[in-house]
Amino acid sequence: MISNKHIVVDIHTHIYPPSYIELLASRDQVPYIHKPTAGDPRLIILPSDDDQSKLAQNRGRPIDASYSSWEIKRAFMTSHGINISVVSLANPWLDFLPSSESPKWAKTVNDDLEKACLEFNKEPSSSICKLFAFGTLPLSASADDNRAEVIRLKTLRHLRGVIMGTTGLGLGLDDPALNPIWQALQDTETMVFLHPHYGLPDTAFGRPEVVARSGHVLPLALGFPLETTIAVSRMFLAGVFDRFPNLKMLLAHSGGTLPFLAGRLQSCVEHEREFIANGGCKQGPKRDIWEILKMNIYLDAVVYGESGLKAAVHAGSVERVIFGTDHPFFPPLGAESAAWPSVGTNYAAIQGAFEKDEDIVEGILGGNAIKILGLEV
Amino acid sequence: MISNKHIVVDIHTHIYPPSYIELLASRDQVPYIHKPTAGDPRLIILPSDDDQSKLAQNRGRPIDASYSSWEIKRAFMTSHGINISVVSLANPWLDFLPSSESPKWAKTVNDDLEKACLEFNKEPSSSICKLFAFGTLPLSASADDNRAEVIRLKTLRHLRGVIMGTTGLGLGLDDPALNPIWQALQDTETMVFLHPHYGLPDTAFGRPEVVARSGHVLPLALGFPLETTIAVSRMFLAGVFDRFPNLKMLLAHSGGTLPFLAGRLQSCVEHEREFIANGGCKQGPKRDIWEILKMNIYLDAVVYGESGLKAAVHAGSVERVIFGTDHPFFPPLGAESAAWPSVGTNYAAIQGAFEKDEDIVEGILGGNAIKILGLEV
Repeated sequence: MISNKHIVVDIHTHIYPPSYIELLASRDQVPYIHKPTAGDPRLIILPSDDDQSKLAQNRGRPIDASYSSWEIKRAFMTSHGINISVVSLANPWLDFLPSSESPKWAKTVNDDLEKACLEFNKEPSSSICKLFAFGTLPLSASADDNRAEVIRLKTLRHLRGVIMGTTGLGLGLDDPALNPIWQALQDTETMVFLHPHYGLPDTAFGRPEVVARSGHVLPLALGFPLETTIAVSRMFLAGVFDRFPNLKMLLAHSGGTLPFLAGRLQSCVEHEREFIANGGCKQGPKRDIWEILKMNIYLDAVVYGESGLKAAVHAGSVERVIFGTDHPFFPPLGAESAAWPSVGTNYAAIQGAFEKDEDIVEGILGGNAIKILGLEV
Repeated sequence: MISNKHIVVDIHTHIYPPSYIELLASRDQVPYIHKPTAGDPRLIILPSDDDQSKLAQNRGRPIDASYSSWEIKRAFMTSHGINISVVSLANPWLDFLPSSESPKWAKTVNDDLEKACLEFNKEPSSSICKLFAFGTLPLSASADDNRAEVIRLKTLRHLRGVIMGTTGLGLGLDDPALNPIWQALQDTETMVFLHPHYGLPDTAFGRPEVVARSGHVLPLALGFPLETTIAVSRMFLAGVFDRFPNLKMLLAHSGGTLPFLAGRLQSCVEHEREFIANGGCKQGPKRDIWEILKMNIYLDAVVYGESGLKAAVHAGSVERVIFGTDHPFFPPLGAESAAWPSVGTNYAAIQGAFEKDEDIVEGILGGNAIKILGLEV
C-alpha cells in the first residue's frame, strides 16, 4: 500500500476548457468574453462586471491562457507543490443556456474534462502530477436530463462529482423539482461541489458608486460566502437533508460562513414560532445543522486564515476538510511571482492552525481528499 | 481590591423603556406597536413583520412586559446568574424619527436609562445585581446634535457607550458625514455597540412565500450577522479605522461573520485591481483587518456554539470577547421555563470552548467587561 503522506490535493481549482471559452466568446450578454483588437480578452462573468460606463475592453477582468491551458495548470501545480488537482468548470457553468442546449454542452464539457485528465495523466512527470475532475450538469434542462448525466458521469473514469451553483433549476436548492436530481446524486454517491456565483443583491452593499471604489471586494469577500450559506441553509430548512440523508455536499470557501453561523441558525430554528404549530408539534427540519455538518457536509480549506479554518474543522469533520487554491482566480497583482500569495495564505493557515498535529495537516492537504473521492495515486 | 471572579456581565441585553414603548404605540408604520382589544400587544419592527395579508393582531411578535419592565430584567438576571447588565435600547432605536424630533428623544431615552440604572442599583439584593447602559444617538439629526449628545452622555454616571445601527446618518457607516461623530466618539473614548436591524434585501433569500415557511430564520440567522459584517467591512474599506485609529467598536453577535471572513476580506483587498493604481501605489485601507480586529474591535459571545466562539476569540482578542444574552429576544417557546435555552447555549459554548482555561472563561463571562467598560462592582 502506497502512503498518502505528503501528497497535496487541490479540490478547488477551476478550468474553462477551450470549448467553453468558445461558447463564452460567441456571446455578448453576461457571461461573455470580449476580444479586443489589442491586449488580453476580457471575461465578464458577473452582472457587476458588465459596467456599461466602461469601454468593453476595460470591463470585467483580463482572461489569459491560465483559464484554459492544461499546461499552465500543470506549471501552477508544480510550482505550488500540488500533486493532484480535481478541476471543475468555473462559474457560471451552464446555468445561462437555454434548456435545448444545456444537455449537449454538459456532455461536451464533461467529455472534454475526461479526455483532458486522460491526456494529462499520461505525461511523464518526475513526481506525482495527476488530474481528476468535477463534472457539470445541464440544470436549465429537465430533471430527467440531469439524472441521465449524473448516471453517465459514473462511466467517466476521472470524474469524481459535480459542481453546482446555488440556483438549481432556477428557483434555488430548496425547490422540490430538484428531488429526482438529489435522489440520483444520492443513489450514485456523487459528491456535489456547491459553489457561489450570484452573490447578494447589489443593494446589500450600499450605493453602487461607493461599492465600486473597492472593486469586487464586497461582492467577492462577503456576497459569495453568504450566497453559499443561504443556499445550504435553505436546503436544511426545506428538509432536503431529511429526505436525502446520504447526500454529500462539498461547500466552497469552507462553507461560506456556515461553520460560524451554524449555532445561530440552529438556535433560530429552535426559537421560530412558525415551527411550533398544532399544539407544540415541531415542524421544520428534523435533523439539526450540527449533525448535517458532520454527516453530509465537506468543506474546502479556502478561507485564508486560521480563525476560519479552525471553525471549519470544529463545526465540520477534521477528516472532511480539504485544501484548495481557487486557481486561476486571485493571481498575484503587479510584479510577476511564481508563488501565489493567495495559495501561500491558505497553506500557512493549515500549518499554523494545526502545527502540533501532523496527521491533521496531512489529512487536510491531501489524505482526506484521496479517501473521500477515491483518487488513485 | 475586590476580585472580579465569578461576576457575570451581560453586555447584550435590550430594553424598550416605557417612554419608547409609548412612542412606538403612537405610530402605525414600521416600527410600531399594535394594541389589540384582547391579548398581548404586537411589536412590528422589521418590514418583513408588517405582513399585510395578516390581521394586525397577528403581525410581528407579541410584546409583553419583558420588553420594558426593569423588574422582569432583574428576575431574568437572577435566574440566569447575571450580576451586571449593560442594557441598550433595542432596534431600530431612533433611526426612523424626523430630524426635528430625534435629539429630544435621544435625551429622553438616555435620561430614562440613567434614572432606571440609579433606581435599580439602589434596591437591596442578596448578591450583586447592577445595571449600566449604552445610550442612543439622534442619528437622523445633524452631526453637531450627535456630537453634543456623545459629550453629554459622559455626564451620565451609568452610561457606558452608545448603541448604533448600520445606517449611520442614512447612507451607511462609510459616509464621510459621520467623521465628526467618529471624532467625538474617539475623543471621549466612547464604546460603540454596533447592532443590526435592517438585514439583507428580501430577494437575497429567494421567493417570499418560501422564505415565510421558516418565519424569521433566514433574515435573523443570516441577514442580521451579514448586515453587521457588511457595515464594519465598509468602514474598513473606506479607511474609517485609518482616520480614527482609537475608535472602539463592540460588534453584536460575535461580529456577525467577521471573525470567519476576515481572511477572505483581507485577501480580496490584497488582490483587488482597483486598489493597485498609479504604477503600483497601493490604495485602499492602510491597516489590515486582522490588526483592526485586535486593536479596535470588541465582540460579544452571542454566537450559540463553540466553533463560532473560538473563531471570535482567535480573530479578536481573548480579553475583548464578552458574554451576552440578547434578552428579551429568543425566549423559550411553548412550555414556560425559568432557564432560557438561548442563554444556556451561549453559557455552554463558553464553558465548552475553554474548559481547560478558567481565566478565559472568567474573562468572557465578566472580567473583560468590567475592565473594558470600567464597571464599578
